[in-house]
Amino acid sequence: MKDKRIPLSKQKEIEQQFLQALGKKIRKLRFENDNMSQEALGLECNLDRTYIGGIERGERNPTVLNLKKIADALGVSVEQLFSEGSK
Amino acid sequence: MKDKRIPLSKQKEIEQQFLQALGKKIRKLRFENDNMSQEALGLECNLDRTYIGGIERGERNPTVLNLKKIADALGVSVEQLFSEGSK
Repeated sequence: MKDKRIPLSKQKEIEQQFLQALGKKIRKLRFENDNMSQEALGLECNLDRTYIGGIERGERNPTVLNLKKIADALGVSVEQLFSEGSK
Repeated sequence: MKDKRIPLSKQKEIEQQFLQALGKKIRKLRFENDNMSQEALGLECNLDRTYIGGIERGERNPTVLNLKKIADALGVSVEQLFSEGSK
């Protein structure tokens, strides 16, 4: 379905769900990584713990390079951050 | 390998290669999509043609929501933008 035919409110909802699903996946991978804390993840990838928390809650729209830092720190590929299955 | 042990210049080089690979993949998927022009892709996802060009050249660090718009317009998942194979 083309974006143009989606009303803005619906578009925003879809984007919000997308960010929340990404955040949930990152949180899941973090727990699978020896129950790593947000603080430890933040230190590992040079990002602030509160920024990590915002991404996990779906409240942030991260750049692809920040996603790469997070993926590297979790020992997965960026592709895996968007895949349905687990690691 | 932990980021901290990578010298900054090497880190920048790795990030540059990552952005260039992403840009190449988007360009490839665009051509596979009936030779869609950058302009048509830009119109489709409400992003400027020059911004699309910058992403394809690896000169931009797009947000994940902009990547989703591009993926949607190309009829692929965001995961596929990072996968090795073609569509």
